[in-house]
Amino acid sequence: MDAKIIEELSRIMSKERILQNVADRYSYSFDASFGEYLPDVVVQPQSTEEISQLLQLANRYKIPVYPRGAATSLSGGPLPVQGGMVLDMSQMKEKLIIDKENLLAIVSPGVITADIHQKAEEVGLYYPPDPSSSHVSTIGGNLLENSSGPKGLKYGTTKDYVIGLEVVTPTGEIMRTGGKTVKNVTGYDLTRLIVGSEGTLAVVTEAILKLIPKPPARKTMMATFKRLVDSGYAITRILQSGILPSALEMMDQYCIQAVEHYRPSGLPVEAEALIIIEVDGHPKAVEEEIHTCAEICHQHDALEVKVANNEEERQTLWQARRMVSPAISKLGPTKISEDATVPRSKIPDMMEHLRKIREKYQLNLVVFGHAGDGNLHPNILTDKRNKEEMKRVEDAIGEIFEAALALGGTLSGEHGIGTLKAPYLKRELGETGVIMMKKIKEAWDPNHILNPGKIFPQPGQNKVVLT
Amino acid sequence: MDAKIIEELSRIMSKERILQNVADRYSYSFDASFGEYLPDVVVQPQSTEEISQLLQLANRYKIPVYPRGAATSLSGGPLPVQGGMVLDMSQMKEKLIIDKENLLAIVSPGVITADIHQKAEEVGLYYPPDPSSSHVSTIGGNLLENSSGPKGLKYGTTKDYVIGLEVVTPTGEIMRTGGKTVKNVTGYDLTRLIVGSEGTLAVVTEAILKLIPKPPARKTMMATFKRLVDSGYAITRILQSGILPSALEMMDQYCIQAVEHYRPSGLPVEAEALIIIEVDGHPKAVEEEIHTCAEICHQHDALEVKVANNEEERQTLWQARRMVSPAISKLGPTKISEDATVPRSKIPDMMEHLRKIREKYQLNLVVFGHAGDGNLHPNILTDKRNKEEMKRVEDAIGEIFEAALALGGTLSGEHGIGTLKAPYLKRELGETGVIMMKKIKEAWDPNHILNPGKIFPQPGQNKVVLT
Repeated sequence: MDAKIIEELSRIMSKERILQNVADRYSYSFDASFGEYLPDVVVQPQSTEEISQLLQLANRYKIPVYPRGAATSLSGGPLPVQGGMVLDMSQMKEKLIIDKENLLAIVSPGVITADIHQKAEEVGLYYPPDPSSSHVSTIGGNLLENSSGPKGLKYGTTKDYVIGLEVVTPTGEIMRTGGKTVKNVTGYDLTRLIVGSEGTLAVVTEAILKLIPKPPARKTMMATFKRLVDSGYAITRILQSGILPSALEMMDQYCIQAVEHYRPSGLPVEAEALIIIEVDGHPKAVEEEIHTCAEICHQHDALEVKVANNEEERQTLWQARRMVSPAISKLGPTKISEDATVPRSKIPDMMEHLRKIREKYQLNLVVFGHAGDGNLHPNILTDKRNKEEMKRVEDAIGEIFEAALALGGTLSGEHGIGTLKAPYLKRELGETGVIMMKKIKEAWDPNHILNPGKIFPQPGQNKVVLT
Repeated sequence: MDAKIIEELSRIMSKERILQNVADRYSYSFDASFGEYLPDVVVQPQSTEEISQLLQLANRYKIPVYPRGAATSLSGGPLPVQGGMVLDMSQMKEKLIIDKENLLAIVSPGVITADIHQKAEEVGLYYPPDPSSSHVSTIGGNLLENSSGPKGLKYGTTKDYVIGLEVVTPTGEIMRTGGKTVKNVTGYDLTRLIVGSEGTLAVVTEAILKLIPKPPARKTMMATFKRLVDSGYAITRILQSGILPSALEMMDQYCIQAVEHYRPSGLPVEAEALIIIEVDGHPKAVEEEIHTCAEICHQHDALEVKVANNEEERQTLWQARRMVSPAISKLGPTKISEDATVPRSKIPDMMEHLRKIREKYQLNLVVFGHAGDGNLHPNILTDKRNKEEMKRVEDAIGEIFEAALALGGTLSGEHGIGTLKAPYLKRELGETGVIMMKKIKEAWDPNHILNPGKIFPQPGQNKVVLT
């Protein structure tokens, strides 16, 4: 990076927080998706004021700026695809205040999500969003990607728990949105526009999160089904019975077999589907509800139904689901994790499409996910060095997207568009949708400084995984 | 209106849906706030395509366009303050589909909110937002104003239940946002940007609403307190006990006295506060929870605590709250209903500010509202013909806004900014907040066609109720 710019940077922040050597910069060149892009410089801001000055500088010199939390993004959110400057936001983590009286948390962007869970629960409160990376990921990353996880069905996503933000705009202005009240209709909802904007509209420097009372009890069950379609019927019946589970997870036969192979625990490898249901709330209610769920599974020809009687048994049931990622990783060195999402009633149709895609392209395509809200995770295990196979992966992913959209679904339920799904954006949103989004981006970020190369397809970009 | 424009209008829609005579237009000149503005023409579109053409026409001739549902707005949302064309959206009401399997409703903008409640409940589902005008108001108005009501504490606001929209943009393009999945992170959240935009960013032509299973049971209680501060302590204790009531309403002494005077039912007129608490959920849970609430009220020196044992008793308890509006209307011909909202823990401070404002300006200022989420309704009963009193009202409202903001609250919890609160916008949002909102407005509506004169203060506008 130009010495003049480094000189200006060192007037904003101390030199040890400006990383220039290639070994340091390399650590910031990737995330949990794939592709590597070396930034020209990495800075570790510690205050809102510093970030404001950094963005003003970036606008003067037209330097792309890439905010980054813990880089657990599965869609390329923090990748510095045009080089420039990475803002390492993980160092800005001094504030984690639980306001018990107002059921709020006030947090800095670098705070780890799981620390919010823990601090809230210590005083009987609850922050529901729990992406699987929550022990590593920062709340700043969760906010900008609108992360969710298994609790979306009952509790919604990150967006449903953010009521106020402090941000720095792309041109370096400091702005507060929303506030400490759950009801607030003063002007446009910039809070929820920024949440989920994948770091293209603002850098979040503080957030006010809504908490709820911690549900006093929960109960968990697991059921396996010989036929996938029966698990679908059971899920529909459960949801129509008036029960709203706090989690409703499913795994297909390939996942079951991979997990049983990886760590044998007696899972029925002949089962086409395994579901885990958790309900939470009042102790008497959850007791009754979990038995209703179990009964419904039995009525729909479950092979086996297990209800956990204590925390240890609960952990054992969840173990099957938790082992999916490590187990399927054995199937190939490159894991491509999609999150195409369909209306819940279309899950059986989507599963059938996925089965056909697997056969057509002869790929290790396995499916698990959040069946309650239609948010499936088709994962392809492959090897990115195998060009021929990657071509088939590319085509298969295209068909997965088309199938989800044809069923009234979306390209992304929780991972974001990032770099990977950008070529399909217009297919879902239509020409007008993309234009209206771009108008906002251009009005706020006239120099295209903030996280350029994300969400909107770049000229000539029409491939998802091939470069 | 110019004959040439009427001629063009009649090419878009049949003549009987183009209202030109002054008696018809007068019916569209007011809403539930105050001020009268005669539109130049009123049109009653019946399709998205017609609205698209109307907006294109309006852009060609620079005609202001004012979408209007049932005009129950308390902030001037639909008032045609610059004349022009009113879009009477109440005729566009053909679609009200409940999708039981996916827990969704698909609705036209002119559908009455209470009809959605009813249709959902017929199949065991539930649409929580219930503004007090729900038997009259249209869902389109609810969407654009992000209406809420008593259930905000537990269930959030209209925005939390909208997952997809069909809209016409200010320049006349038809666009779909979101979809039928609860999880959707494809691009910016235009759905929630448009919801609550007070009709300044788009005309809603269809919405997809999220429903939840209908809570199987509910229980209701009422408590009166000699001292207002004790009711505050009781509310805080209840919320910290892990109970999340579905409604937590309060009335101050002036409301209690007005209701008792209007329809005597033995309410204690010496009480400084009356609260109504409703819990819903599993039958066993609500039974236990309502008695915990009652016990806590007793511990905080409640004068009287009543728990409803059946639906009839429940209706009797709610009667006190329902009578507030008709009862206080007797105190003056002009009712100014504010909705300044503060963090819940600041309610006692806000009540103290309101008491002082009442004394200082010698006004009929009464307070009721949604204590659970800090959303108070200070109402001033006055007479708009009394210029001297209106000057005091103007100053009092200014002090109410300042007090709410000083306590970390907002100008508007659920009514919207509209015409009335625009002069205070910058005071809450700051210069940058207003600028960033205006950038969106200008990027989408370069000709300032859609609902001009709302949210953003007009040049020279610095009064709230005085003209």
